[in-house]
Amino acid sequence: MSVILNQNQYGKSRIRLLKVRRTGARHEVFEWMVAIRFEGDFESAHRTGDNSAILPTDTMKNTVYARAAESSATTPEAFGLELARHFQGGNPQASRIEIEVVETPWQRFSDVGGAPHDHAFVCVGPERRLATIGLDRDTAGVWGGLDGLLVMKTTRSAFSGFLRDAYTTLADTDDRIFRTVISAHWSWDAGLKDFEKFTAARRILVDTFAAHDSRSVQATALAMGQAVLDGIPEIREISLSLPNQHCLPVDVARFGLENRNEIFAVTEEPHGLITATIGRG
Amino acid sequence: MSVILNQNQYGKSRIRLLKVRRTGARHEVFEWMVAIRFEGDFESAHRTGDNSAILPTDTMKNTVYARAAESSATTPEAFGLELARHFQGGNPQASRIEIEVVETPWQRFSDVGGAPHDHAFVCVGPERRLATIGLDRDTAGVWGGLDGLLVMKTTRSAFSGFLRDAYTTLADTDDRIFRTVISAHWSWDAGLKDFEKFTAARRILVDTFAAHDSRSVQATALAMGQAVLDGIPEIREISLSLPNQHCLPVDVARFGLENRNEIFAVTEEPHGLITATIGRG
Amino acid sequence: MSVILNQNQYGKSRIRLLKVRRTGARHEVFEWMVAIRFEGDFESAHRTGDNSAILPTDTMKNTVYARAAESSATTPEAFGLELARHFQGGNPQASRIEIEVVETPWQRFSDVGGAPHDHAFVCVGPERRLATIGLDRDTAGVWGGLDGLLVMKTTRSAFSGFLRDAYTTLADTDDRIFRTVISAHWSWDAGLKDFEKFTAARRILVDTFAAHDSRSVQATALAMGQAVLDGIPEIREISLSLPNQHCLPVDVARFGLENRNEIFAVTEEPHGLITATIGRG
Amino acid sequence: MSVILNQNQYGKSRIRLLKVRRTGARHEVFEWMVAIRFEGDFESAHRTGDNSAILPTDTMKNTVYARAAESSATTPEAFGLELARHFQGGNPQASRIEIEVVETPWQRFSDVGGAPHDHAFVCVGPERRLATIGLDRDTAGVWGGLDGLLVMKTTRSAFSGFLRDAYTTLADTDDRIFRTVISAHWSWDAGLKDFEKFTAARRILVDTFAAHDSRSVQATALAMGQAVLDGIPEIREISLSLPNQHCLPVDVARFGLENRNEIFAVTEEPHGLITATIGRG
Repeated sequence: MSVILNQNQYGKSRIRLLKVRRTGARHEVFEWMVAIRFEGDFESAHRTGDNSAILPTDTMKNTVYARAAESSATTPEAFGLELARHFQGGNPQASRIEIEVVETPWQRFSDVGGAPHDHAFVCVGPERRLATIGLDRDTAGVWGGLDGLLVMKTTRSAFSGFLRDAYTTLADTDDRIFRTVISAHWSWDAGLKDFEKFTAARRILVDTFAAHDSRSVQATALAMGQAVLDGIPEIREISLSLPNQHCLPVDVARFGLENRNEIFAVTEEPHGLITATIGRG
Repeated sequence: MSVILNQNQYGKSRIRLLKVRRTGARHEVFEWMVAIRFEGDFESAHRTGDNSAILPTDTMKNTVYARAAESSATTPEAFGLELARHFQGGNPQASRIEIEVVETPWQRFSDVGGAPHDHAFVCVGPERRLATIGLDRDTAGVWGGLDGLLVMKTTRSAFSGFLRDAYTTLADTDDRIFRTVISAHWSWDAGLKDFEKFTAARRILVDTFAAHDSRSVQATALAMGQAVLDGIPEIREISLSLPNQHCLPVDVARFGLENRNEIFAVTEEPHGLITATIGRG
Repeated sequence: MSVILNQNQYGKSRIRLLKVRRTGARHEVFEWMVAIRFEGDFESAHRTGDNSAILPTDTMKNTVYARAAESSATTPEAFGLELARHFQGGNPQASRIEIEVVETPWQRFSDVGGAPHDHAFVCVGPERRLATIGLDRDTAGVWGGLDGLLVMKTTRSAFSGFLRDAYTTLADTDDRIFRTVISAHWSWDAGLKDFEKFTAARRILVDTFAAHDSRSVQATALAMGQAVLDGIPEIREISLSLPNQHCLPVDVARFGLENRNEIFAVTEEPHGLITATIGRG
Repeated sequence: MSVILNQNQYGKSRIRLLKVRRTGARHEVFEWMVAIRFEGDFESAHRTGDNSAILPTDTMKNTVYARAAESSATTPEAFGLELARHFQGGNPQASRIEIEVVETPWQRFSDVGGAPHDHAFVCVGPERRLATIGLDRDTAGVWGGLDGLLVMKTTRSAFSGFLRDAYTTLADTDDRIFRTVISAHWSWDAGLKDFEKFTAARRILVDTFAAHDSRSVQATALAMGQAVLDGIPEIREISLSLPNQHCLPVDVARFGLENRNEIFAVTEEPHGLITATIGRG
C-alpha cells in the first residue's frame, strides 16, 4: 500500500545552556533550555534512509553552545531568533524552523545591607519565562510568555448563576479561593527587536489577577488579556491558560466548630481548565 | 480598547475514575482519567460575568461518575463517545466537545499454576492507552493511541551519511542503541463502534520497531506507521512521536580496557525528537 | 565557637549504566542506576579544604563504567558488592561504603509465534528492583528489594472496629478497594552469593497480597512479610511500606442511580502509609 | 514459623491544608502539607486484625483541619507541636508520634507603588520550609529546616589536590560553577516556643554560601553549618545535604572559538552529593 507523509518534523529538545557573562567582578547569568525543530523536505530520510538532508540533532546541540559563545542576546526571544536565522542560512531544505527557549529565573543575591552580590544567585520560583520562534521562508513569528506562575487570591472571587442539569450539585458561591498557575503566551509585533517589555506584561497579568472582581475564571482571563493588550502596544494577541486548582472549604461544623471560611483542603486533581485567546478588535 | 475573543475553551481535567464490574466472583476493572473541554459561545461569561451558559466543571466531573455507573463501555473510545454525546445533547451552546481518556493498564494476576485471579490486578508499565473524541455539531472524530511505551533495541540501528556543517562533530555509526518512548495517535474510521483493534495496532508498532533495519529514527517511524496502516484497515492516519533517548558509548579504553560496544551511559536530556504523520495514499 | 562534625558522607548519585552482553546474535541487557557514598575520616576536607583524602565523585562515576565492562554480575546485588569491595580496597580512609543500585525492568520482546527476540526489549512497569550494599571495615550487609509495584484488589479488604474519637467520621466497611504501591526491602543472609531468589520473593509478595483476607493494611503487611520469611530461608528480615491509595466510593444515588459499589474516585493524596519490619522469631 | 514485629508505624501523608486568617480586609495565608505517623503497640492489628487500638488515618486528616480552625499557630513548628500533643493526649497506645509539616512559601503581592496587597499572593520558589516533631512519652524534639533552595555561584569555587587512582580523569580546577539545591534540617532547643528565627537561619545559609571561598563542597557545607550555629544560639545541631549539580564547561575551541569559561552545559544527573551534620563542640 502506498502511504503519504502528511507531516514531519525533527530536532533536539532539552538542550540546557548556562551562560555567564563576566564583566570584571560582576557576573550576569542566563539559563536557557532550548528545543529546535526542523520541518521540510525530509521525505528521502523517511522513505529510503538517505540522511544527506539531515543535519544531526547533535549538531543542533553544538550550535546552541557555539552561538551562545558569540551572542550578545540578553532575552530568550533574541537568542532564539539568532539561532533560527543561523539554521535557516545553512539549511534551505528546512521550510520552517521552530525554536523554543525556556528561561530559568535567577535573581542576584542581596548582601546584608541590600547591596547586590557580584556572583551569587538564587532561583526564584517554579515560574519560567518562555520564547518561541517560528521562521518560515518569508515570515518570522516571535512569541513571548511565561508559565508556572502560581498565584492565589483569598476573596473577590465568585461563581454563581450557572447552568444546572440533573448532575449539578455545586452551590452558588460569592466568596471562594481563586488559585491558579498562570500560563500566558503572546505574539510580539513583527520586526520587534527589543523584548524587555516582558517585565511590564508580567506585571499587568498579576496586578489584574489581584485587582479583578472575579465572577468566573473566564471573566478574569479576559480581563487579564485585555489589560495586557491595553498596556503593551507591541503585543498583538495573547493566549491564557488558567487551571482552577480548587481549594475546598472543610466543613468543620461536623466537629462542633464554627465554619468561618478559613479552612480549606488544597487539591490538584481534578481541576478546571479555562483557556482564551484575545486579540485586538 | 475593544478586544476580540479569538478562541475560548473550558472544562475539567484529571477526573480519575475506577470502575469495577462484578460478575459473580470474577471482577473486571477499568481505570480512566478523563478530561472534558467545551468550545462555543461562552462570550457573555468572559465579557459580563454572566454564567448562565456555563455548565460547571464540577457537574462535568459528576457526569463522568454517573454515566460510568450506567455505561457498558469497555474501551476508552466507547466511553468517551458516550460522554461526548451526552454533553452535546444538553449543551447546544457548545459547538465542539472534546473528551480525552487515559487508561491505566491493569493486568489480572495469575495464580500459581497460571490460573487467572478473580479480583487482584497489577499495573503493567508506565505505558498508557489513550482515546480522544472531538464532537462538532455535524461530525465526530475518534482517535486512539498510546504513550509511555519505553522500548530499546541493541543493534540493527545505524545513522550515517548525514549533512555536516562547521559545528558537526558526530561520527557515522553503523551500530548504535535505539531507545525511545513510543507515542502514537491514530484516527479511527468514522462510524466505527468497536475499538478492540487497539491491541493489534500496538502489536504491529512494537514488532516493526524490533524488526526494522533502522537507518534513522525517521525511517523507522515511517515503517511503523506504514505497517499499522497496512495491517489495520480501520485506521485512516497515524502520528508518531519518537524521542531519541541517547545511550552514549563509554570509552573504557581510557581505563586500559577494550571497547566492545557494551557499556553505555543512559541520558534523558538533551534528546532527539522525531515526529511524523502518515496517511493513506 | 568550635563545632563538631558529627556525621559526614559524600558520593555520586544517579550514575546510569546500560550494559549489553552480546553472545552471538542474542543480547542481554542490564540497566542499573548506581549511587555511591563514602563515610569516614574526611574531616580535613571539611575543616581546611585539604582534598587529599577525597576520591572525586567523577572518579566514582568512571569506576562504575570501567568495572561494569569487566564484571560478570547479573544481579544488582552482585554488581553492587563488586563495586563496594573495589572502593574499599583503594580507600582505607573510608570506614563505610554504601552502594545503591536501582534496576530498570527490561523484558525481551516475543516475536509473533512467541519466540523470544534477540535484541529488542520493552520496559515493564514503573516497578524497580533495588539492591543496597553497606560495607564496613569488618562486615558486609546486602539488602534486596523492589518498589513502585502498583497493585489492587477489588474485594476481600475490610476495615472496621477501629478506635473512634471526636473527629472520627469514617464508617466501618467490610468491602473496600485495596490499592497500594508495594515497597519492600529485605536483608540477605551474610555470605550469600546468588541473589536469584528475588523472583521468588516478589512472587510471594504479590500472591499473598492477592490471597489475604484483609482486615487492615497492617494485617496484610504482616502476612506478606511472614510469607516471605517462610518461603525464603535466605532472607533474615523484611521491611514493607504500603501506602493506602484511597479509592473513594462515589455516591451515585445522588443522581438517581443505584449504589452498587462499582464506581470509585481514585486519589493519591492524602494517603495512608503503613510500614512494618518483620524478623524471624 | 514465628515472626517478630521489629518495627511498625502508620499514619496519613500529604494532608494539604490552606488556612486563611481574615482580620478585616487584610488576609494572611498558611499552606501546610502535613504527615502524621504513630509508633507503638499496634501488634494486635498486625497479628489478629483487631483494629480497636487503631485511630483511622481518616480521623488524623479530620484532626488536622479541625485543629487548624482553632489554632493560632503561625509557624509549621508550632502547628506541628499542637497536633502532636493533641494526638498524644488521646492515644496512650502510641509510644511515639511524628509530625512533618511542609510549608509552601506564599508572598503577598505588592501593588503598584509598593503597597502590600490585602488578599493576593504569589508562590515564590520551589523552596519549602520544613518542620518535624518527634514526641515520645517523655521528650519532644522539634526540627526546623528547608529544602528545594536552588542557588548558584559563578566563581570562588575550586576543587583541586584530590586523591587520584587509575580511573581518575578529572582535572584540577580553581574556578568552577557551584550550583546546588540546599537542604537543611536543624534541631531547635528543647522548650523553645518561638520559631521565628527560621528567617535568620535561612539568611545565614545563603549569605555564607555566597561569601565562602570554596575549596570543596565539603568545606562550604561545614562553613554554612558553623555560621548557623554561631549566629543562632537556639539551634543545637544542623544537617546539610548539598547535591553538586555539575555545570560542565563546553569546549567551544572545537568550533574555532575562544574558551572564556562562559558557556556551560547544565546537568542534573549524575550528581555529587555531600552531607554533613554539625554540632556544638
